[in-house]
Amino acid sequence: MDLLLTYDVDTTTPEGRRRLRKVAKLCEGHGLRVQKSVFEIVATDVDLLHLLDDIGKTIDTDTDSIRIYRLPHNGFNNVQTLGTARIQPHREDLVL
Amino acid sequence: MDLLLTYDVDTTTPEGRRRLRKVAKLCEGHGLRVQKSVFEIVATDVDLLHLLDDIGKTIDTDTDSIRIYRLPHNGFNNVQTLGTARIQPHREDLVL
Repeated sequence: MDLLLTYDVDTTTPEGRRRLRKVAKLCEGHGLRVQKSVFEIVATDVDLLHLLDDIGKTIDTDTDSIRIYRLPHNGFNNVQTLGTARIQPHREDLVL
Repeated sequence: MDLLLTYDVDTTTPEGRRRLRKVAKLCEGHGLRVQKSVFEIVATDVDLLHLLDDIGKTIDTDTDSIRIYRLPHNGFNNVQTLGTARIQPHREDLVL
């Protein structure tokens, strides 16, 4: 399934920036970082459970916010953009 | 339609923070701010065109990134959350 994960963390502190780097590394194993704290993820239900578990151990649950939205089929290719944002190809898009 | 708008802007500068405040004000006319730079929006096609136009005049298109994802029906109520994130009711959810 295609998911969008957004992470709200205070990056004015070194600890916040460190957590963002760790969450980014976890998410990048499943997809693309499309903004500083927004990730397009392709995951099975099992992948997602593991990812949630890993993220839960990384973030500060008293201050940080993670939201994961399920997108419709082809949702990554159907994004409206302004400014520097670009639609980015996922690996499965490259399969002929 | 139900949309998710994410805004990537450098908030270490006063100008960036000012643009984020302006974009937040524009988006809050159409929905809810669920993270510092993530907005759940309900909009018609015409609403969206007006919103994109207003946002385009507000952001710095050389540095800022706006992405707008279309969510499936009931997408706002089908969000997985960690940390401080909560599912928030939209106005139409309150109609009996």
